[in-house]
Amino acid sequence: MTILVVGSVAYDSIETPFGSRRETLGGAATYFSLAASYFAPVQVVAAVGEDFGEEPVKLLRSRGIDLRGLTKLPGETFRWAGRYEFDLNTRTTLETRLGVFATFEPVLPEPYRAPEFLFLANIDPEVQMRVLRQVRRPRLVGCDTMNFWIEGKPQALAAMLAEVDMLVINDSEARELAHQPNLVRAAAAIHAMGPKTLIVKRGEFGAAAFGAAAPFAVPALLLEEVQDPTGAGDSFAGGMMGYLAAHVSGGAITDSAMRRAIAMGCVMASFTVQAFGVDGLLHLTMERIEERFEQFRRLSHLELA
Amino acid sequence: MTILVVGSVAYDSIETPFGSRRETLGGAATYFSLAASYFAPVQVVAAVGEDFGEEPVKLLRSRGIDLRGLTKLPGETFRWAGRYEFDLNTRTTLETRLGVFATFEPVLPEPYRAPEFLFLANIDPEVQMRVLRQVRRPRLVGCDTMNFWIEGKPQALAAMLAEVDMLVINDSEARELAHQPNLVRAAAAIHAMGPKTLIVKRGEFGAAAFGAAAPFAVPALLLEEVQDPTGAGDSFAGGMMGYLAAHVSGGAITDSAMRRAIAMGCVMASFTVQAFGVDGLLHLTMERIEERFEQFRRLSHLELA
Repeated sequence: MTILVVGSVAYDSIETPFGSRRETLGGAATYFSLAASYFAPVQVVAAVGEDFGEEPVKLLRSRGIDLRGLTKLPGETFRWAGRYEFDLNTRTTLETRLGVFATFEPVLPEPYRAPEFLFLANIDPEVQMRVLRQVRRPRLVGCDTMNFWIEGKPQALAAMLAEVDMLVINDSEARELAHQPNLVRAAAAIHAMGPKTLIVKRGEFGAAAFGAAAPFAVPALLLEEVQDPTGAGDSFAGGMMGYLAAHVSGGAITDSAMRRAIAMGCVMASFTVQAFGVDGLLHLTMERIEERFEQFRRLSHLELA
Repeated sequence: MTILVVGSVAYDSIETPFGSRRETLGGAATYFSLAASYFAPVQVVAAVGEDFGEEPVKLLRSRGIDLRGLTKLPGETFRWAGRYEFDLNTRTTLETRLGVFATFEPVLPEPYRAPEFLFLANIDPEVQMRVLRQVRRPRLVGCDTMNFWIEGKPQALAAMLAEVDMLVINDSEARELAHQPNLVRAAAAIHAMGPKTLIVKRGEFGAAAFGAAAPFAVPALLLEEVQDPTGAGDSFAGGMMGYLAAHVSGGAITDSAMRRAIAMGCVMASFTVQAFGVDGLLHLTMERIEERFEQFRRLSHLELA
């Protein structure tokens, strides 16, 4: 089943203790679609500026990603610059230039208007809503957001949340959104806002999920080599939605399918953080992905074979 | 099999967003032995001052804990005061008064000198070493430590670590001890210091273990009610060592037994944080403990029945 994603396609400049990159391909929709592309057909809605090169387009096409919804607009491509400290857990944003995203009015091509899965990656909630309005009700609508919109556009965010099935968000932002430091209570408050399922991203501590079934939580893989955490959360979302799109055919999404999908999200995020930018997502095979999925399963399994 | 623990028995004054307690029974050896007492016989080595009341002694005895190694000395009982912020993850130590622990020279009663399991709870590494010198080689020696000793007594700490099997320590302190921000690499460095097994306590994110087998990591239980995190780490260690003492009879400690022991550590810590001070550990039944263990197993299990 097809996944449609709307979100940023950007140029990132990244500094970590292990190196730096200038103006490398990034953005939430980029990481999401690369991760999801291993599992299902992906369509992207985003805007880039006149300065956006042919190389990144080729790179995304090489993964079979449908770019008919990638619009080139007058102006500059979205740019983000950030620096990670010694332990990679503290990130300082050095610069954010919205560029063409400041005025982006997405118009979906006709073949994009009936996706089975829709993911509204982190972007202005008004843009998320405009995309949602242009599609026939998908089977599953997921979204992400961040403190910038929680604080800056609470009403637009609330309107959007009321119409989505699943919110995928950072741990601290879930608590901020709910005005509630306890995560279990925050989840209940967020369910009341609309999303029946809340997926909490916890960085190197994994993820937690709150839905109709009992809560679910997993650690992240313990990695000896972490180069660059940028895009980990979007790769997680892409791996998760991709897994669902590939494995759920008709009927409800079961708790078991959801758990495996979250595990696959952790797996795809682990590939991302092991290299700079999107490099970790470019040359994977299903064999490597499945091998790491098995490694992940063993990581927290109490009953060893 | 019997567990001997050396560590602090203290009076704690605690403030959390949900209330406060003045001069309530606390200390690493207290939490450890209460948690372990549900699984195995426990012997305590510690010092208290002349101000130590009869009530806490009765309370510990009611759990069948052997207090022949609890020495009353001239002076004051160890006191700690701390405050937890809004999210319960940030703790400020308001006061630490070592009292009788400043000059404590433990002398083990004869029946204490052949424990099968020994836990050197967080205390001056010189005191930990003196206890270790007085026992016949136990089956398993575990220890804890903290940044105060990592920074203040690195040589005494190194000498002690060289002789223990298992280090149980907070995530940030593991990285500090190893001078290594990556946890997998920190584990390798710590293995080289002596302990073949490293158990990393990650607070509300659970625990990770690094030993001869593949790494293991589990999330913590997701709790709606958290009152007071004090003693969670020591309860974790007590539950874990208690489980091992109860379930490992002869032969090596298997990877499976270790995984279940860590899970039981998380279970016992979860009871502790749900009430103030030691209250959460006082009136448990094996039925409640096993029920929560099952809840824990389901929390991160990918294959649901």
